[in-house]
Amino acid sequence: MTWHVNILTLFPDMFPGSLGQSISGRALEKKLWSYNAINIRDFANDKHSTVDDTPFGGGAGMVMRPDTVEKALLSIATAGKKLYMSPRGKPLTQEKVKQLATTENLTLLCGRYEGVDQRVLDAHDFEEVSIGDYVLSGGEPAALILMDACIRLLPNVMGNSTTPDEESFSNGLLEYPHYTKPDPWTDANNITHKVPDILKSGHHKNIAIWREEQSIALTKERRPDLIATLAQKK
Amino acid sequence: MTWHVNILTLFPDMFPGSLGQSISGRALEKKLWSYNAINIRDFANDKHSTVDDTPFGGGAGMVMRPDTVEKALLSIATAGKKLYMSPRGKPLTQEKVKQLATTENLTLLCGRYEGVDQRVLDAHDFEEVSIGDYVLSGGEPAALILMDACIRLLPNVMGNSTTPDEESFSNGLLEYPHYTKPDPWTDANNITHKVPDILKSGHHKNIAIWREEQSIALTKERRPDLIATLAQKK
Repeated sequence: MTWHVNILTLFPDMFPGSLGQSISGRALEKKLWSYNAINIRDFANDKHSTVDDTPFGGGAGMVMRPDTVEKALLSIATAGKKLYMSPRGKPLTQEKVKQLATTENLTLLCGRYEGVDQRVLDAHDFEEVSIGDYVLSGGEPAALILMDACIRLLPNVMGNSTTPDEESFSNGLLEYPHYTKPDPWTDANNITHKVPDILKSGHHKNIAIWREEQSIALTKERRPDLIATLAQKK
Repeated sequence: MTWHVNILTLFPDMFPGSLGQSISGRALEKKLWSYNAINIRDFANDKHSTVDDTPFGGGAGMVMRPDTVEKALLSIATAGKKLYMSPRGKPLTQEKVKQLATTENLTLLCGRYEGVDQRVLDAHDFEEVSIGDYVLSGGEPAALILMDACIRLLPNVMGNSTTPDEESFSNGLLEYPHYTKPDPWTDANNITHKVPDILKSGHHKNIAIWREEQSIALTKERRPDLIATLAQKK
């Protein structure tokens, strides 16, 4: 099986974008994942290829028509799990990414303008997903993020070069700080920075304890909300 | 003045990516914003262009060296506000996006592998920013998101086609649902969906009240955390 993503978009050329390079690009070449970017405009009814219209109830901006979006959706043989990328959605988490990376077929609907008519989302059970509490030019950059996060977790994509089990959010905490050569390092202002001694001690157990302490301290400082979530789960 | 972004990366070809199209692409052509993608590898010391090394204290993966990152940083004439894209950072919000969109010069450091040596982040006052609680293949897709969110807010980029003041998060709430033609709409399962009558009433005040009620109900259902934040501010 290959992890496959259908993308419903007005800008099919935005794909694969950054996913065409580095580890996701190599994985695409090796057919470890595949995608199909479908231009919603190809399913418009009129000769002007109209995909949007003014919102009922007034207001600036345009809304994408439900009929055209539905036709584009129905052109997909196996839509699988349907997601609508939207700041109104449930926030994407690493846990959700892991689920989606094991879901064989996904269909990502990318809105532009003011968004998509609510009725087509309801009629076809689109789950709304948000990548963060900010507004983008459209759903396409958000779809690229969701795909990037999933692709690195697919079998045989990362090899041993990274460690999903020890990274941020794997244990509900932010990751500890990293250090590499040179040590000591003298910066351009002639200040010398040393790597913490504990990391050079060779004492694996103490290093593990230090790293966990660092993770907890950083999470408390920057993300007290994550600590509260952890406490609730325990 | 032009909004300018310096990007420190191992994958300069990932830029402008999706930002080269649609409204951000047109804005780039009109010089309403500009960017400079700097390849950190060009600043490596040795003939193998090594930019990373093993982490002190052990563990899988590689860490980006502080000396190479610093040299790449110092090659920038006006670095401005320095941000490191990292899941360990403070979550990006629409409020922060608005701030950054009025900051003339930004420098975005994109990590790969396990991340960047902590010392160079500390020595050069990089602020760590996270676009969400998930892990990406690197900082580049996150940088594209931050830039996309900022670019649409720059003067003269969107024109009247969208309405930043009425969208999600502008009032701390998720946005109300949108509807457009046709009305009624019969879907492929032969179910007919009507647009809510209130939106066709022409009664602007009642429409505004209905939309606010929808916003509040949706936010309560999907994002009780946002309601709690609003309550604290009041």
